[in-house]
Amino acid sequence: MSEFSETLARVRYKDTDQMGMVYYGNYFTFFEIGRVEYMRERGIAYKQMEQEDDSYIVVAEATCRYLQPARYDDLLRIRTRVSESRRRSIRFAYEILRHDGGEVLATGETLHIICNRQGRPKSLPEKYRQLFPVKIGSTN
Amino acid sequence: MSEFSETLARVRYKDTDQMGMVYYGNYFTFFEIGRVEYMRERGIAYKQMEQEDDSYIVVAEATCRYLQPARYDDLLRIRTRVSESRRRSIRFAYEILRHDGGEVLATGETLHIICNRQGRPKSLPEKYRQLFPVKIGSTN
Amino acid sequence: MSEFSETLARVRYKDTDQMGMVYYGNYFTFFEIGRVEYMRERGIAYKQMEQEDDSYIVVAEATCRYLQPARYDDLLRIRTRVSESRRRSIRFAYEILRHDGGEVLATGETLHIICNRQGRPKSLPEKYRQLFPVKIGSTN
Amino acid sequence: MSEFSETLARVRYKDTDQMGMVYYGNYFTFFEIGRVEYMRERGIAYKQMEQEDDSYIVVAEATCRYLQPARYDDLLRIRTRVSESRRRSIRFAYEILRHDGGEVLATGETLHIICNRQGRPKSLPEKYRQLFPVKIGSTN
Repeated sequence: MSEFSETLARVRYKDTDQMGMVYYGNYFTFFEIGRVEYMRERGIAYKQMEQEDDSYIVVAEATCRYLQPARYDDLLRIRTRVSESRRRSIRFAYEILRHDGGEVLATGETLHIICNRQGRPKSLPEKYRQLFPVKIGSTN
Repeated sequence: MSEFSETLARVRYKDTDQMGMVYYGNYFTFFEIGRVEYMRERGIAYKQMEQEDDSYIVVAEATCRYLQPARYDDLLRIRTRVSESRRRSIRFAYEILRHDGGEVLATGETLHIICNRQGRPKSLPEKYRQLFPVKIGSTN
Repeated sequence: MSEFSETLARVRYKDTDQMGMVYYGNYFTFFEIGRVEYMRERGIAYKQMEQEDDSYIVVAEATCRYLQPARYDDLLRIRTRVSESRRRSIRFAYEILRHDGGEVLATGETLHIICNRQGRPKSLPEKYRQLFPVKIGSTN
Repeated sequence: MSEFSETLARVRYKDTDQMGMVYYGNYFTFFEIGRVEYMRERGIAYKQMEQEDDSYIVVAEATCRYLQPARYDDLLRIRTRVSESRRRSIRFAYEILRHDGGEVLATGETLHIICNRQGRPKSLPEKYRQLFPVKIGSTN
């Protein structure tokens, strides 16, 4: 299985702001789309993780670097990989490219902590752990 | 107590789209703000309604008529009233005005059904009912 | 060509609210997606309409009726048609269905006025007019 | 004048997601609110900067660290300061606190480049420059 997951998303009018580009906070929705597809491709339905395994992937940190503006109706290619995984945390890295042309529009990272419904940190259940490549350590 | 509730909200960059005005779906957020303030002024904390009284105000219908565009940084005056209240439903009516000048920018309505956590319709608890003026009938 | 256009969209975490369903204002984004796809299938790139023909489709009225909640990760089927078209206005009608199962979750309508960049009403350029079936009158 | 600017914002239903907290991408809207108020308090109407001085504050980088979840109806206190200012760039730092209690819920930073309408970097006009404390260098 490829280390990367790729998925497409089209920029909606709703995503733009009056500067005529995607509002800076909305890139994090594209990161969410990439993250969910990364998991789906590996057989992980995040909805089930929440409902059946009481495991919520709570975001602890998020960063985006904006290189070129994404504009209305652009078809975006979202490339997602796990850049670090530990027992209780996962770090995803993203690249957003314009599908036509291939320029990188934005890059970013999100760090997540595994929590139960009450928001208390827990270890990622065993069955999911094998699906995330262990990148750095396994003690946290 | 006045029949109307009025509250102010400023248009954020996030609310605009590339046409340079507020995105049409975002007016419903301003209606939400008006609705919540209407209830707060009458001593109803909607959060408690959900948590303590298992009463959710679920929207069944929403309409907005757009008269003049609201633009970035406009200070909006949201005027909210109950246009109809029944045992299991409430209808709110809204006007959104530009605070400087007073033009009406949009008008709208939302119809709500009272439901429990499972989404099943129920009667509005007695203690809340007296806070909403009964406008039309009381049998539904 | 079919009278209807159909397109799919998946509910994102971003679209939900704490009631665990899609926020009521966000259905209008799904209507936008349906509307844009309806035009794209008929060879109309809305981006070009704005940039090359100075024709903006400005919303004048929008309504949604909520029948069943759409939830996180639901794949939605958005069915769009033109229910009325005149020289200076177009009315779209929408149905949002759950792709698995086919229940209708919401229905709605939007009425649009053709405007130029300054927001002044104008007639829809001839080349676009033939792409919208004339439904009622042609004098307005 | 205080180095900090503080402003309040209430969490709307729209801001939450089905985890019952503010969606992670929406904290960047609160940062926007803080940034705009910081400028307004110093006499800078960002709208005028765009319209009269052809100066757009384009975001180049944004980071948020999530410490405690912000929840529906929470009144947030957004504390904003300039952590670095150069000729062509400004860095803002933010803290989001729960107004009742005062816990820090999130911290973050945004880096901005001054651009003209075409998106080309330019120096911040002189009249604005004095309003931002120069923190580090003045050569870039």
